[in-house]
Amino acid sequence: MKNKISIIKIGGNIIDDEKNLDSFLANFAKIKNTKILIHGGGKIATQLNEKLGIKTIMNEGRRITSTENLDTVCMVYAGLINKKIVSKLQGNDCNALGLSGSDANCILAKKRPTNPIDYGWVGDVIAINSSTIKMFLSHGITPVFCAISHDGNGQLLNTNADTIAAEIAIAMSKYADTELIYCFEKKGVLADVSNEHSIIENINYKQYLALKENNTINEGMLPKMENCFNALKNGVSQVVIGSSNAINEDNILQSTLTL
Amino acid sequence: MKNKISIIKIGGNIIDDEKNLDSFLANFAKIKNTKILIHGGGKIATQLNEKLGIKTIMNEGRRITSTENLDTVCMVYAGLINKKIVSKLQGNDCNALGLSGSDANCILAKKRPTNPIDYGWVGDVIAINSSTIKMFLSHGITPVFCAISHDGNGQLLNTNADTIAAEIAIAMSKYADTELIYCFEKKGVLADVSNEHSIIENINYKQYLALKENNTINEGMLPKMENCFNALKNGVSQVVIGSSNAINEDNILQSTLTL
Repeated sequence: MKNKISIIKIGGNIIDDEKNLDSFLANFAKIKNTKILIHGGGKIATQLNEKLGIKTIMNEGRRITSTENLDTVCMVYAGLINKKIVSKLQGNDCNALGLSGSDANCILAKKRPTNPIDYGWVGDVIAINSSTIKMFLSHGITPVFCAISHDGNGQLLNTNADTIAAEIAIAMSKYADTELIYCFEKKGVLADVSNEHSIIENINYKQYLALKENNTINEGMLPKMENCFNALKNGVSQVVIGSSNAINEDNILQSTLTL
Repeated sequence: MKNKISIIKIGGNIIDDEKNLDSFLANFAKIKNTKILIHGGGKIATQLNEKLGIKTIMNEGRRITSTENLDTVCMVYAGLINKKIVSKLQGNDCNALGLSGSDANCILAKKRPTNPIDYGWVGDVIAINSSTIKMFLSHGITPVFCAISHDGNGQLLNTNADTIAAEIAIAMSKYADTELIYCFEKKGVLADVSNEHSIIENINYKQYLALKENNTINEGMLPKMENCFNALKNGVSQVVIGSSNAINEDNILQSTLTL
């Protein structure tokens, strides 16, 4: 295994658009060091629910996962999107292996307590099987994780993709220098949400607290930022938030987070 | 790796019934030697198509796979069923790893020629990546394959599960003594289709040709039997056709095929 691992998380803006996905995957395949991809589900699960007449209920951006919703999530995340990504990466000469957290027991989680909010079949990560992931990497395999974990007793659990990415990065940081990259719809963390160019290039933890205090960073960005600093505090060398174009390119604006 | 590999294929009668599936998987997990599971899709893909208003067109029991149908197949086989099986096996202390043929490039196939019948996105197996499968087995991992392959250029392909099972058994037979077991709805090959108890316990190739000649074996059983004898001719030690109850049990009636 090479001495650097890049852990990259992609979301809806890449997954929901086949052209964006193709372009991202071609770039991802070219990354020379060892790498791991984590993907969310984008809008496709919600669209499939609509076609099937299944209700989609969200709470603060998180899906309330009924049994029917878990089936949809498994079909879309682990079936449709994961296998599409894996086959496209194989076509780009990247030896990808699609995984849910139940596969080879990679991500063990615990069903979230039903109090104060019952999220249904949603899991919080309790362990990453880093030795198995390391074994895959040492054989030249590139793991591609969807956002599904399991409880070890036969139950699959819907799990936040940002958190899975952070937990995998933390777990792998004991073996190698680990970089965690969140690709999202903006070019980075913005000082002014109405100005796409107001990217804050460097943010340390003290600066983050100030930006949070004065409400520059708020709402949906807060859990993402918490994941980032949690990763940095637990062994990850560098966390980047940027657009998918920043992958494999130098001199592109993005936000780099440090402690 | 132990010196025997059991390759077991299950179909609709097990997959479509959660109780049957649970009971089969508990038995499967107890098999002591190295093992590989291959599953078909049962009726669930057709049921999902119905809900989505997508046409299911079959030709001689084989699905004509349009782009929409391929999406359904990926969702149901690689997502819903595969992950359900994997998580349930994990709950039975079996370290399962769910795979499509694109994952780690395990099953390379070629799109079937459109003449005489255009089957759409259907593939015929051209190579099994036996060294990668052997590597998984040597790490105590139990591969669980769904019936999807890929062409190596980014395209997933719907592929017959019986054939995948036979091809994997043939490929693995160079490493170990390999047993191929087809679990299906009958207890074995029947001498009289109207009599469930008329199981032919032993069938060699000469006997098979005679049974085919006098029409005792016909229709849907013919491609299955051809797969079996093809496996035996190419290195597989034993092929069994029987009910799922025959797994891990002695003294149960089933059909054993030899050359």
